[in-house]
Amino acid sequence: MKIRIRDLDMARTNPREKDKPGPTEDHPDIVIKGGTLLSMAEGESPVDRARVFIKGDRIVDIKTSDGAERYPEGTEVIDAENSVIMPGLINAHSHTAMTIFRGYADDLPLKQWLFDKIFPAEAEHLNHETVYWGTLLGCLEMIASGTTGLVDGYFFPEDTVRAVHKSGLRALIAQGVIDFPAPGVSDPEENLITGWKFLERWRGFSDLITPGLFCHSPVTCSDKTLKTSMEISNDLSLPLQIHLSETSEEVEEIVKRTGQRPVHYLNGLGLLNDGLIAAHSIHLDDEEMELLAGNDVRIVHVPESNMKLSSGVARVSEMVKMGLTVGIGTDGCASNNNLDLFQEMDTAAKLGKVFTVDPVDMDARTVLRMATSRGAKIMGLEKETGSIEKGKKADIIVVDMDRPHLVPLYDPISTLVYSASGADVKDVIVNGRILMKDRIFLTLDQEEIMERVRAISRDIGS
Amino acid sequence: MKIRIRDLDMARTNPREKDKPGPTEDHPDIVIKGGTLLSMAEGESPVDRARVFIKGDRIVDIKTSDGAERYPEGTEVIDAENSVIMPGLINAHSHTAMTIFRGYADDLPLKQWLFDKIFPAEAEHLNHETVYWGTLLGCLEMIASGTTGLVDGYFFPEDTVRAVHKSGLRALIAQGVIDFPAPGVSDPEENLITGWKFLERWRGFSDLITPGLFCHSPVTCSDKTLKTSMEISNDLSLPLQIHLSETSEEVEEIVKRTGQRPVHYLNGLGLLNDGLIAAHSIHLDDEEMELLAGNDVRIVHVPESNMKLSSGVARVSEMVKMGLTVGIGTDGCASNNNLDLFQEMDTAAKLGKVFTVDPVDMDARTVLRMATSRGAKIMGLEKETGSIEKGKKADIIVVDMDRPHLVPLYDPISTLVYSASGADVKDVIVNGRILMKDRIFLTLDQEEIMERVRAISRDIGS
Repeated sequence: MKIRIRDLDMARTNPREKDKPGPTEDHPDIVIKGGTLLSMAEGESPVDRARVFIKGDRIVDIKTSDGAERYPEGTEVIDAENSVIMPGLINAHSHTAMTIFRGYADDLPLKQWLFDKIFPAEAEHLNHETVYWGTLLGCLEMIASGTTGLVDGYFFPEDTVRAVHKSGLRALIAQGVIDFPAPGVSDPEENLITGWKFLERWRGFSDLITPGLFCHSPVTCSDKTLKTSMEISNDLSLPLQIHLSETSEEVEEIVKRTGQRPVHYLNGLGLLNDGLIAAHSIHLDDEEMELLAGNDVRIVHVPESNMKLSSGVARVSEMVKMGLTVGIGTDGCASNNNLDLFQEMDTAAKLGKVFTVDPVDMDARTVLRMATSRGAKIMGLEKETGSIEKGKKADIIVVDMDRPHLVPLYDPISTLVYSASGADVKDVIVNGRILMKDRIFLTLDQEEIMERVRAISRDIGS
Repeated sequence: MKIRIRDLDMARTNPREKDKPGPTEDHPDIVIKGGTLLSMAEGESPVDRARVFIKGDRIVDIKTSDGAERYPEGTEVIDAENSVIMPGLINAHSHTAMTIFRGYADDLPLKQWLFDKIFPAEAEHLNHETVYWGTLLGCLEMIASGTTGLVDGYFFPEDTVRAVHKSGLRALIAQGVIDFPAPGVSDPEENLITGWKFLERWRGFSDLITPGLFCHSPVTCSDKTLKTSMEISNDLSLPLQIHLSETSEEVEEIVKRTGQRPVHYLNGLGLLNDGLIAAHSIHLDDEEMELLAGNDVRIVHVPESNMKLSSGVARVSEMVKMGLTVGIGTDGCASNNNLDLFQEMDTAAKLGKVFTVDPVDMDARTVLRMATSRGAKIMGLEKETGSIEKGKKADIIVVDMDRPHLVPLYDPISTLVYSASGADVKDVIVNGRILMKDRIFLTLDQEEIMERVRAISRDIGS
């Protein structure tokens, strides 16, 4: 198993622009035709028999009238008959490389899971190779289930960058920062310099990838680490991620240590601003919710992981009503155990309803928005992606609705959230590049990646 | 749209036995080979490279040693390389024909959903044809997602019988009984005679189909209806289904009406015995749980519907620990909105953990047992199906694990519950008959069924 350094030699620009002769002004590169368009643009309803025109990395036109155009030779035509054309989903919280630990440790008490299984396995088995191949497997899975953008934070993030770059997905990829010895950062004194070097190295590397920092949590990072991480992030106009109030124990710990609840504590350190992405955000009181909303902090709801680890249920419906930007994420595969955002949307909607005892809460449209346009806002890319609009980047998926469990079709949004799964996704386009067509992966070698991760798992499991 | 009466002319015996020349003693009809066997027999662990031999409707041998046999011409060989061979799943609570209402009414207040949408739509649109085609669509979906047995209760059940018989699935199919005018039973005075006629007509019709009664609920059925339904069911040794304490409102209603909580009330009527199948069973106090356990009542957990309608969370983990037989069901497609038991298992496990705040609760093995061997016990068929054992009926599915989201594979049970979805099922065998091979349906015409239900939905939606 050798890391292929040539992956790093790829262009710093959009591969399409480099690899293909530029089309003439009137010729689209790709036309998606015949499907129901669900643009997720504010206020728009589904439109039947739409056509979406893509040139380079952008959507250049959308036609919704019937038309029997002929397209110039070389135009890639994607047939969306009996399908929905929609923005790709955005996984706003993941540790993608953790696919290598999928199913390794389930149904255990939380401390045993973390201290006896996950932390030791990470310490022993995370390295450049395992993170690279684990991330590639996660990218395969995300492409296969209609995810076009992801927010990641983990260790060896340069290998995550290499893998995501190879896959063609759009991503915010962060260096994990923690005040303990960590995989790839054995001396905690080096954690911020490691993070800073990571940002410097990968800023501007690709239109598709934004580097960042990820402070593990208020419990595992010191005042200084938290403050400095935010200062660095602010200076470079990059978002800072953090796990916020995932368990009641960590809230108690912070209160004991600082006399304040976590959100107040972070506020005192100057962390509450629209550059902060707070994942989980479960154990919050009313005042903390107001503080988060007042400071435009971005929230990521992670329902399945929160359920599986019995962490609790976030007050998401209230947050959405307060105007907070809330995205949706899967977390890593050790606590989910898949990256299928269609299933995550379904769970988010249903968990929300039973938690508030109100079947109107977390309706399908709200949840689909969280996974698309709101996810784009979590990434800081709401002007570029998250909806299908002329001028935006072409991050688009086609979902095949011609399947028994998606029939009949009274309301595409309802059916996508409550009935569909990732396996119904047919085609995936990111930045104008086709990553999957008719369920064939075009950028990644499925067999090789699965074999590599199987080999890694034999080491871990032995 | 015409009902094809010829469907009723099919043999009353297993079609395999009729259609094919009988094999000689040593020749299996079907061999499944090369996969990991998850027999779900009590105390057994997964076994690699197993071979399962089927003759007629039964499993005649299981070999777990390596062997390069040649099979006689005419033996159907199913390749389970990189796959799991496991018992088919059992959907212990469904109103299958409600596929026609999938996505018709979501995200509404409960009363508006029921009284403004579902009840009127049922009154107007349920008939022999819509139930027949809706059930066929549900059967397609169940086969596609690895369900081999179902427990159904609805109106026009004779059309459900016809459809399920055509599909080849195993089922307990019940006539809905309610003391209000109902689809197909306009005069409530006729409800029990209608039910009795249904039982008389379909008993013994097929090895695969058992008829039954389904009392809608203690709120909507009178004392007399409840008692008589149980007497008829007991006389014929058939189980009786009921919706039990699905909402807190109906519990209050029963308490107001009778001075007793629903389980005590049913106990007084003589309904608590091992012939009662109680679906939902959410709002129960400790004493009611003890009563149910002491009387061997069979419970069906319906997590996704309970979440979507915000009915509440059943105390399933406690029930299992008390020794109650608990199966798992999807409910109808108006409140789920699919029939995928793999996703339902995942939700059951995760909801259980977050509800009890214990990540050890509702572990993957417990949940998989609920959907297989326990489901068989709900159907009253635990000696015949629910596990892969020599002499049992061949109700078997093969799940393709060679997919990105199912790699790596530390523990097949964990991966099946937490990572898989119905779309990963490759082959489905019921009663020794192959219903789906390599995802091709062998008993049902997918295109015709989807077209018919689309036509029905245009009437409903207009």
